[in-house]
Amino acid sequence: MEGSNIVVDIAAISKMEGSGDIHHTICIDNDKSAVRKKISEEVAKLLELKAQLGDEAPKKFVLKCPKGTRDYNPVQMSIREGVFKTIISCFKRHGAETIDTPVFELKETLTGKYGEDSKLIYDLKDQGGELLSLRYDLTVPFARYLAMNKINAIKRYHIAKVYRRDNPAMTRGRFREFYQCDFDIAGQYDVMLPDAECVKIVAEILTQLDIGDFKIRINHRKLLDGMFAACGVPDDKFRTICSAVDKLDKTFWDDVRAEMVDEKGLSPEAADKIGHFVKFSGGIDTIEQLMKDESLAKQKDAVEGLEELKVLLTYCDLYKVTDKVVFDLSLARGLDYYTGVIYEACLQGYAHKPEASKGKEEECVSVGSVAGGGRYDGLVGMFDARGKKVPCVGVSIGIERIFAIMEQRALANNTKVRTTETEVYVVSAQKHLVEHRLKLCQELWDADIKTEQSYKKNPKALDQFQYCETNGIPIAIILGQSEIESNCVTMKNTVTRAERKVSRDDLVEEIRKELSSLS
Amino acid sequence: MEGSNIVVDIAAISKMEGSGDIHHTICIDNDKSAVRKKISEEVAKLLELKAQLGDEAPKKFVLKCPKGTRDYNPVQMSIREGVFKTIISCFKRHGAETIDTPVFELKETLTGKYGEDSKLIYDLKDQGGELLSLRYDLTVPFARYLAMNKINAIKRYHIAKVYRRDNPAMTRGRFREFYQCDFDIAGQYDVMLPDAECVKIVAEILTQLDIGDFKIRINHRKLLDGMFAACGVPDDKFRTICSAVDKLDKTFWDDVRAEMVDEKGLSPEAADKIGHFVKFSGGIDTIEQLMKDESLAKQKDAVEGLEELKVLLTYCDLYKVTDKVVFDLSLARGLDYYTGVIYEACLQGYAHKPEASKGKEEECVSVGSVAGGGRYDGLVGMFDARGKKVPCVGVSIGIERIFAIMEQRALANNTKVRTTETEVYVVSAQKHLVEHRLKLCQELWDADIKTEQSYKKNPKALDQFQYCETNGIPIAIILGQSEIESNCVTMKNTVTRAERKVSRDDLVEEIRKELSSLS
Repeated sequence: MEGSNIVVDIAAISKMEGSGDIHHTICIDNDKSAVRKKISEEVAKLLELKAQLGDEAPKKFVLKCPKGTRDYNPVQMSIREGVFKTIISCFKRHGAETIDTPVFELKETLTGKYGEDSKLIYDLKDQGGELLSLRYDLTVPFARYLAMNKINAIKRYHIAKVYRRDNPAMTRGRFREFYQCDFDIAGQYDVMLPDAECVKIVAEILTQLDIGDFKIRINHRKLLDGMFAACGVPDDKFRTICSAVDKLDKTFWDDVRAEMVDEKGLSPEAADKIGHFVKFSGGIDTIEQLMKDESLAKQKDAVEGLEELKVLLTYCDLYKVTDKVVFDLSLARGLDYYTGVIYEACLQGYAHKPEASKGKEEECVSVGSVAGGGRYDGLVGMFDARGKKVPCVGVSIGIERIFAIMEQRALANNTKVRTTETEVYVVSAQKHLVEHRLKLCQELWDADIKTEQSYKKNPKALDQFQYCETNGIPIAIILGQSEIESNCVTMKNTVTRAERKVSRDDLVEEIRKELSSLS
Repeated sequence: MEGSNIVVDIAAISKMEGSGDIHHTICIDNDKSAVRKKISEEVAKLLELKAQLGDEAPKKFVLKCPKGTRDYNPVQMSIREGVFKTIISCFKRHGAETIDTPVFELKETLTGKYGEDSKLIYDLKDQGGELLSLRYDLTVPFARYLAMNKINAIKRYHIAKVYRRDNPAMTRGRFREFYQCDFDIAGQYDVMLPDAECVKIVAEILTQLDIGDFKIRINHRKLLDGMFAACGVPDDKFRTICSAVDKLDKTFWDDVRAEMVDEKGLSPEAADKIGHFVKFSGGIDTIEQLMKDESLAKQKDAVEGLEELKVLLTYCDLYKVTDKVVFDLSLARGLDYYTGVIYEACLQGYAHKPEASKGKEEECVSVGSVAGGGRYDGLVGMFDARGKKVPCVGVSIGIERIFAIMEQRALANNTKVRTTETEVYVVSAQKHLVEHRLKLCQELWDADIKTEQSYKKNPKALDQFQYCETNGIPIAIILGQSEIESNCVTMKNTVTRAERKVSRDDLVEEIRKELSSLS
């Protein structure tokens, strides 16, 4: 603090020295050059002093969370636990087990799995021993787990934090530390049966969370590959052109086309053919229309992709989610490891509109996708010494964006969120009853009744009732000398303020009755 | 696969060549030495081939978890979730809210909080930006959270993983990544009221987990300091002598004394006085006995510590945990930040016996403490620009050691642990019914019935019933052509094998009835 005051002084003096202003203050002196010299000396002294202070002053302590991370306060935790409950119920309804893996993996476990995104992986410092990285998603650790334990078939969910050194945008729910809620089905099964269940699960969860209308866009990596081949994209450019297509949800076609042609060296004809195809979006009709396309019909991959998508949409219809699902040939998804069906769910109210955001990127970027996934039949094989494959399909729910919406809504509605489940507060009506309170609390805790009391020896009655109100505790049990003498307590409903005397012998039972009448 | 076959062949041939067995197969040839020569040539060729394969084979990939970490498989997760449920219920019964903090903190947040243990902190690699470290416990992040948000009073729990680059001993539940379950009360309250509740909570949790008898040892940092002063330990040696005392649960007194005198330069007289005091262990009687000690009576800290311990033991008695609690003047605890009461819970069956482990350290080291904590009134002030203090007391339950015991027990008892909650399995009795199954699953999921089906289009009946048995699914709903035609299903109890026809219209209701009759 003092250091910075000195800086200001020096700056002011330096400025005065260089300008004519100095005359106003010290022109009474005849010898200007002497004054200038004197000032220069003083400035030098001050600057030296500043340098000394810089060294000796205590380093200012920064009190913050690391960039891109956040704490959750109790209200936020309440919201988060509500969301988890919905998601976990759905995963369990579909018969999933759960597993957990360490927060970090051997660095080489993550190497070569994420394509261009690998630069976003957090590495641990080499402190001797193994080289480690924080997990980037839950899918690669899952594949490592399957290969390591030689598991051929499992349906599991995994809810845990993952880490990406991305540019955070925290108000929109984009963090460097964030939760993923993953559900995956591994095993050699029949076409689209596990895939359709993943889509169904996304629809169930987003419906139950009740955060507005949503659409699940669906595409197929084989159809994309076949389409690229049909458009004349060279094999070695599939991946990079796919990355360009992936930007279509945030960027105009013209810009994506420019990237393909100018940056990535694709021929304008091929780019225009891609431009024709990526407009296709719809249901089974659209799939059938594309099946008739002669250029696609020549591509084995494209035909397979279209056939599988048709089966998927048929199953989605049986699962009654047709109104939520849309086939979209412009969906590409970033990750390298997908090999089949891919999907992504976006909230409609928060969808990105490129036309609205031109020139004011910050304000209009959408909350974006809240769930995504797809089929990755090759990933487990990358970890197996003999390359043995375990086909997998899964979905990942991105919780932070959903939290962001729910938090904003809770704030907007001024919703009162309870952060504890306390049922009973034990109140001292007089002084010197702390030991009686402790005994009573012990009885209630042992009867599994959620009970609190003041941590003051002789708390004021008003403070105690205020605590009940602030924290929404429904029942106050009041202890006074007269109650103690007659082996009873006063039970008070803190909302209706109704009071009645209850014998200590019946207390637990009476509290249970009162609680069940409240709920 | 082929590589290893070649190895086997070579081994076999080499063996044959050196023994007499070779005669049985090729003795029809007259010229034995020619045969031998031929074989030697072939062996040489094969060995060369093997060497080439060795060089060209892909680099061996290490498929493992990082040192000191583990995956949790579904059975282990079931056990873990059961333990969490018990612990969280207890925390909620005592009115706690919950918070969460990031897995890493600014490095400087952790600096200077852990004394000698700081060397065990995991740092992240400097990839540009802030210097980060993985959290070492949940207490320092909690203190940072309180200071940052200017919170003066809160009762919160936090269950999360922490990270220590310690020497792992995984069979005994000592890991580098492990869970802590923390409960803390922050706020300016009256003596020992929050502290006693923390002790009560440890007793409740360990009792409910039912993992054997346990004792909670209790001491007070001020009593320790006063005792050191009374013994003539110089002020600047308090910490290091305290660390030596901390080893008494694992080491003989003679060795601790040698450390104090030989390594740490304490006078033999002072060490012997300490040796006298650390033998004190017991209840209120022992406290009262120490209160009469003249050398302690002169030390303000010692008197305060003893008085507070007496109050604590009185409250413990009211909380009916006296039989679990023992005052022990040899308890010191490692961490720097404690300022008042300290405590530590050990399972009796797994307690360390130094006399038993002399010379065979590996075999006899105990599971050790499963919970510990204490009062830390200065920690939050370390994060406040004005040094404003928030008194805190808390407890941390160490889950991994409890898991280790429960896992071993489950294995020993051959306990069958269900890892899913699936209630209904939809069975195809014939081929070509996949679409009917999907429709039925959709109805059941929408009615919130936990339902699975085969991901094969035409699964075998036997496989489907086998799946129910393996996974303990109680109800099978069987669909055949006749059922579909008569708008009904066959409902089968997979345990009793009782079957009955149920109309599709009543199905959900009938399943609910069946489930409630089962539970």
